[in-house]
Amino acid sequence: MALQQDPEPQPAPEPGRGFGSARTHDSRMISVGEKAETLRRAVAEARLSCTPETIRAIGESRLPKGNAIATARVGAVLAAKHTPDIVPLCHPIPLTGVDVDIELGETEVAIRVTVETVARTGVEMEALTGASVAALTIYDMVKSMDRGLTIESVRLLEKSGGRSGDWVRGA
Amino acid sequence: MALQQDPEPQPAPEPGRGFGSARTHDSRMISVGEKAETLRRAVAEARLSCTPETIRAIGESRLPKGNAIATARVGAVLAAKHTPDIVPLCHPIPLTGVDVDIELGETEVAIRVTVETVARTGVEMEALTGASVAALTIYDMVKSMDRGLTIESVRLLEKSGGRSGDWVRGA
Amino acid sequence: MALQQDPEPQPAPEPGRGFGSARTHDSRMISVGEKAETLRRAVAEARLSCTPETIRAIGESRLPKGNAIATARVGAVLAAKHTPDIVPLCHPIPLTGVDVDIELGETEVAIRVTVETVARTGVEMEALTGASVAALTIYDMVKSMDRGLTIESVRLLEKSGGRSGDWVRGA
Amino acid sequence: MALQQDPEPQPAPEPGRGFGSARTHDSRMISVGEKAETLRRAVAEARLSCTPETIRAIGESRLPKGNAIATARVGAVLAAKHTPDIVPLCHPIPLTGVDVDIELGETEVAIRVTVETVARTGVEMEALTGASVAALTIYDMVKSMDRGLTIESVRLLEKSGGRSGDWVRGA
Amino acid sequence: MALQQDPEPQPAPEPGRGFGSARTHDSRMISVGEKAETLRRAVAEARLSCTPETIRAIGESRLPKGNAIATARVGAVLAAKHTPDIVPLCHPIPLTGVDVDIELGETEVAIRVTVETVARTGVEMEALTGASVAALTIYDMVKSMDRGLTIESVRLLEKSGGRSGDWVRGA
Amino acid sequence: MALQQDPEPQPAPEPGRGFGSARTHDSRMISVGEKAETLRRAVAEARLSCTPETIRAIGESRLPKGNAIATARVGAVLAAKHTPDIVPLCHPIPLTGVDVDIELGETEVAIRVTVETVARTGVEMEALTGASVAALTIYDMVKSMDRGLTIESVRLLEKSGGRSGDWVRGA
Repeated sequence: MALQQDPEPQPAPEPGRGFGSARTHDSRMISVGEKAETLRRAVAEARLSCTPETIRAIGESRLPKGNAIATARVGAVLAAKHTPDIVPLCHPIPLTGVDVDIELGETEVAIRVTVETVARTGVEMEALTGASVAALTIYDMVKSMDRGLTIESVRLLEKSGGRSGDWVRGA
Repeated sequence: MALQQDPEPQPAPEPGRGFGSARTHDSRMISVGEKAETLRRAVAEARLSCTPETIRAIGESRLPKGNAIATARVGAVLAAKHTPDIVPLCHPIPLTGVDVDIELGETEVAIRVTVETVARTGVEMEALTGASVAALTIYDMVKSMDRGLTIESVRLLEKSGGRSGDWVRGA
Repeated sequence: MALQQDPEPQPAPEPGRGFGSARTHDSRMISVGEKAETLRRAVAEARLSCTPETIRAIGESRLPKGNAIATARVGAVLAAKHTPDIVPLCHPIPLTGVDVDIELGETEVAIRVTVETVARTGVEMEALTGASVAALTIYDMVKSMDRGLTIESVRLLEKSGGRSGDWVRGA
Repeated sequence: MALQQDPEPQPAPEPGRGFGSARTHDSRMISVGEKAETLRRAVAEARLSCTPETIRAIGESRLPKGNAIATARVGAVLAAKHTPDIVPLCHPIPLTGVDVDIELGETEVAIRVTVETVARTGVEMEALTGASVAALTIYDMVKSMDRGLTIESVRLLEKSGGRSGDWVRGA
Repeated sequence: MALQQDPEPQPAPEPGRGFGSARTHDSRMISVGEKAETLRRAVAEARLSCTPETIRAIGESRLPKGNAIATARVGAVLAAKHTPDIVPLCHPIPLTGVDVDIELGETEVAIRVTVETVARTGVEMEALTGASVAALTIYDMVKSMDRGLTIESVRLLEKSGGRSGDWVRGA
Repeated sequence: MALQQDPEPQPAPEPGRGFGSARTHDSRMISVGEKAETLRRAVAEARLSCTPETIRAIGESRLPKGNAIATARVGAVLAAKHTPDIVPLCHPIPLTGVDVDIELGETEVAIRVTVETVARTGVEMEALTGASVAALTIYDMVKSMDRGLTIESVRLLEKSGGRSGDWVRGA
């Protein structure tokens, strides 16, 4: 009855045969109880492509729904905290900090979310979920004026503090 | 103003008398702050009684709503994580692992959920809530074809790691 | 790209072959947009088996966590409202009423939850989820004094208002 | 890319200039990862002003929606647990205890919520949110009979366990 | 088994007597299924008392946690939407609009939340919950610099659209 | 006090001046109460770039966390339902159907989410949020074996049923 981490596929359940195993498609939250609590940090980005006119409307805060940058920032912090509710197999982790950078380029909004915790597993998914939701929040606030919107390049930039060592994209 | 754990009933509030006590019906989240963090584990089961035809439809994945076993598994993991939102007086606990076994018998689906944490209190309710929700999820997906469905025997099978010692049902 | 309700199994995805279909395990929220909004109602029950001493402690409100009946009632109302969050493929439905009956027998607590809505689909799952959570809430509040607890017989008792006609268990 | 705690205002973003900074309105969850875990406690109150007749109806449990005191208590415990979902920049904290006192005066209901945790930051917001929600819950249950309802004086009464020392209002 | 709206108190449950009624403390979500859907609106306020220095820090956006006004606004919108999760016996209502006014006085922040829906019941609780949470959000962001903070005067200002007619405070 | 939809910027709040307006950064949920309820549908996609080996591991269900496709599908349905909790200014909409297509290419996973409702506003954000979360769910389940993962091209493909007419990308 122990928590199993074995990914090997197994035969499909055989209904009507008494109790057979149904483990082939076993989604689970893998066990991290034996890992040590360490200070962990991750940084992720998302980019929202849009027109220059959309960038101007965001920068001048001329949107019917209000201040896109401020709203996206709050959306990102909340989403980072809610990651284990949103991403089904993520471990619940009490985050100790979330920071959000939003920058306006000529034809894109660049979002960078930094998440920090002291926990048994990393916070990559929290940073990625925060960045995705910031981009979705801005998308929602400008979609009435710009139909070509696309969220690009949701990806991890850095992580540190875990057993597998520190990592920086491109380094 | 300390957190009280005393279950003794007290007289009902006397309205209009100045501040009287209303403690008779005091629901509270009892204090566990002084308990030690230990590795804890619990296993619970639920059984869904149904017809052999329903078992076959589940096993062959012929249901309008899709794959019942895979969906129930994800539902169980999420429900185990959400237990303190669902069961009002449960302590919030950052789970470190959740595993779900689903087996098809001739006229029942047997669900077993194992939950693990490192915390100040146990995870019985998390395992029981996970198992209940897995059964409800399958119920939802087969109810259009089977009206005799009943969830039976939602109960704890094992627990370990707490102050009161390890326990196995029937041992 | 239409919402599909076809349960026929299809071949498994063939990775590396260009875009193949992955529909065999297609969990989905089936379409009810074409159905009419009608007044619908469902009644479900759950039973918690326990010792006579546990029944007395509940009735006299002598539990460390407080008033089990009042807490279970609130837990049931909230759970009925949260059903689409808890049971993954349930449709979100704005409930128009929830009522909870809790009765103490000699060796069991009987819970009956009635849910009402005006919607395109029924509220069986809302009534069943409410009843299950009421039972789990009481379980949580008495588990320290009674290890033989079992939730039995979570099942639908009545439903009305849908296209398939009214139904009463055993009628 | 470090988590920043610097509140100094910075120039507004300049759209169309390449990546400029948008930090003026930087909402963030400030970093507490370097702080020590200690036992922390906070007590907050809320007061609901109402008519003497409303007090009597609450005390005698003669309300259409049921038992206001019992419901408010459960609402307060759940709200204290949900504080990081409700108050956007609050840190998620696994609470170890919540206690709720509700007293009926002549023309007010006084609510006092005590929250306890072992964590890196305090639980003032959890106590305040619990007290506010208890008051809102009672408001909801008596609003059909009393239009002058006002929630007054939601405030902190005590806190202990943090780096800044213990504090008692008025001491 | 009908949804009951009768507030009359009834005798307490008699455990061990076979199935007795436990209706005295019956919390429920009262039935509104027979009411008509109409456009409804409510306006509520909350006031946060603080020092003039706190007002200046909010106005100049010099807070460690960032922009209090923007964050409170988002917190209020989300809280209005979450009201049926936060206030246990509230009906779930799909809101059609939420607007938030925040004004800085000399020694207080005044929050006004307007909520609109097309539904079978009113949105007073949504407006009140939104206003309360906006005040709690600002409280959280200034509490490190001001210990005398108090939330005052959370109350309804206007409502319209229901069966009981329009109402304006003081009119 | 009416719900305002005017995006024009206004002067910043002037603290200490009596009640000044703080409307420049007014995030709000814009009013849709006057719009008609119609059947609406939206389709969105997301693409997860990964290595061919990752595609094979997904297709053969050889992942430590289990079946990525089945889990992503459930994650997408739940996320579509939760969109108004995740994207702060979205209107709450009772969805009537959600369908998820996941296809494995040589070096990417393509996700397509279709959402349907009968409501006063569209479901673009629900489809986009569902697709984003499906991609994040798979990312979470394969991240231990593939560090180059990137979510690309989260965008709307089709929408129909609203006042602004039907729309298909590239048409």
